[in-house]
Amino acid sequence: MNIKLAFIGYGTVAQGFTEIIMEKEKMLREKYDLHFKVVAISDFIKGSVYDEEGLNMREILSLIKHGKSLEKYPSGIKGMDGLETIQKTHSDTIVEVTYTDIKTGEPALTHIKTALEAGKNVISTNKGPAVKQTSELLEIAKKNKVFYGFEGTVLSGTPALNLVKYTLAGINITGFKGILNGTTNYILTRMEEGMAYTDALKKAQELGYAEADPSGDVDGLDALGKVVILTNVVLGKKLDWSDVEAQGITHISLDDVRKARENNKRWKLIGKAKIQKDGSVAASVSPEQLPLSDPLAGVNEAINALTFMTDELGSVTIVGPGAGKRETGFALLIDLINMTNHKYSFS
Amino acid sequence: MNIKLAFIGYGTVAQGFTEIIMEKEKMLREKYDLHFKVVAISDFIKGSVYDEEGLNMREILSLIKHGKSLEKYPSGIKGMDGLETIQKTHSDTIVEVTYTDIKTGEPALTHIKTALEAGKNVISTNKGPAVKQTSELLEIAKKNKVFYGFEGTVLSGTPALNLVKYTLAGINITGFKGILNGTTNYILTRMEEGMAYTDALKKAQELGYAEADPSGDVDGLDALGKVVILTNVVLGKKLDWSDVEAQGITHISLDDVRKARENNKRWKLIGKAKIQKDGSVAASVSPEQLPLSDPLAGVNEAINALTFMTDELGSVTIVGPGAGKRETGFALLIDLINMTNHKYSFS
Repeated sequence: MNIKLAFIGYGTVAQGFTEIIMEKEKMLREKYDLHFKVVAISDFIKGSVYDEEGLNMREILSLIKHGKSLEKYPSGIKGMDGLETIQKTHSDTIVEVTYTDIKTGEPALTHIKTALEAGKNVISTNKGPAVKQTSELLEIAKKNKVFYGFEGTVLSGTPALNLVKYTLAGINITGFKGILNGTTNYILTRMEEGMAYTDALKKAQELGYAEADPSGDVDGLDALGKVVILTNVVLGKKLDWSDVEAQGITHISLDDVRKARENNKRWKLIGKAKIQKDGSVAASVSPEQLPLSDPLAGVNEAINALTFMTDELGSVTIVGPGAGKRETGFALLIDLINMTNHKYSFS
Repeated sequence: MNIKLAFIGYGTVAQGFTEIIMEKEKMLREKYDLHFKVVAISDFIKGSVYDEEGLNMREILSLIKHGKSLEKYPSGIKGMDGLETIQKTHSDTIVEVTYTDIKTGEPALTHIKTALEAGKNVISTNKGPAVKQTSELLEIAKKNKVFYGFEGTVLSGTPALNLVKYTLAGINITGFKGILNGTTNYILTRMEEGMAYTDALKKAQELGYAEADPSGDVDGLDALGKVVILTNVVLGKKLDWSDVEAQGITHISLDDVRKARENNKRWKLIGKAKIQKDGSVAASVSPEQLPLSDPLAGVNEAINALTFMTDELGSVTIVGPGAGKRETGFALLIDLINMTNHKYSFS
């Protein structure tokens, strides 16, 4: 299958994905019959370029690396914004990786809707649109016979949504709970070792885990977004972000951590949801003291984990990275493979 | 898709699978377009029955429950053995669930080969054939354009092989390590609490985790089989069971367990394999003292866990049940869904 990719947004994740598909080009062709070229990139800050013949991605990455605008690319049409790129380029698959706004979903939501309605596939790691309108977007994709892949919105490339879709098909999932934010888990891990919250946060910022304004992570908003996506997609229950009470980790002190340890417990920021007997959903994000025997208690550093409660298997837990350039880039690759290839094989 | 199932072997797992597909019949029809009937059952001890029109499975389960032979079923052709059932019945999908012999793979190996060569799909939880000849069986299936599903051979219905095949497609896996046997993990968990090995084994037998002759579990042979399957399928390296050094848990004393705990460690029976720099594989099964910070150290009771080492995601770990009537029955269901349906969807 021949794929013509157009990137909307070209930050770290897009660059990680580009590296992966460049390095794995031969394997993807031979094993998955996946032939691709990148025909367009449109980034709010880095500029935009479109060449129907395909862009030389080595040259693109070099421009980016040297802090130069994409407008410096030697050929192609320049200056198209995200929407124009979606509507006017001869691309068939849109990689939506602009910035995330969980509360409005924009501008990504409009990008994705426009693309799906124009009959283009979308692969995206952008949480915003998935939080706002997953079911609607899946519906639009279905109606237009195209694919909307968003594995990377939860646990980056670690299988979460795909775990349910492909490996737990036919099972009934009644709830989930997880460590859905790496930054806060990193901070809590350092606090377990006796480091104060402010120092741990500073270290997380130095390592690139936390933003300069860390509130999205430490106030629980990022975990909240993932709870909403999982509830809509996996539990099949409509939930808006404003329906969920979210509490972060900012009020947890070293003393709280010490006290928990004395009781063989450990503080973790837990996002969870459960279908109640009346069919409604109880969802929340808040710090919890887990007994050390809980599998989630042993998940430390910036690692994420997610437990699904099921009818046939009881609890099934997946543990893996929740962020990172290549880790999230891989989520776009697995979406691309699932989009194009249904001849799965081992060897 | 209409499926005509024939069971070869009709023990606990087959009965669990039967219960699941009976209970979920409507959902399977509506969501996966999966229509099925069971046309034949052949069991070495319980007898055999074939009715092209489909068997009444409620009646079959009732006969089994009351310890009666399948020959008592009111209609159909009786007395066909496994091979005859595969060759002579109008079935399209063989459920191979006879007893496991890891060293020869027989008689299941002949059953599966015969079925695949006759152009019939096979779903099976039988470790024996997968240990002996996975690659060959997958090759025969491919040549005859049929499906060979064996998810249940590793970690029962907990996604293990499917995790790799569907959710980690395109990734490079360089090794794995896991707690691959529930019985020994249960025994080690009890020993952590101070129970002697022989008492813990007795309790495992009472709970149905361990056989009357527990050697297959406690000597590491069961875990060895899974290491061989994973190495062949996931690492793509040919490995025979006789190539792997397997050591069980019988020599571990309460004193060893205590000493490990004093060093913040915990004994676990670990099966693992890793691709070496020269391309060869180093594989083993042996008890290891894991630091408590290792995610596998926190996996207790009869629960299994498996960590894959990957290029793009680092370590990814799945934790879930490794045995059980419904748990292993579900492995057959997911194989059946993957066999028939490539229109995966969430809702």
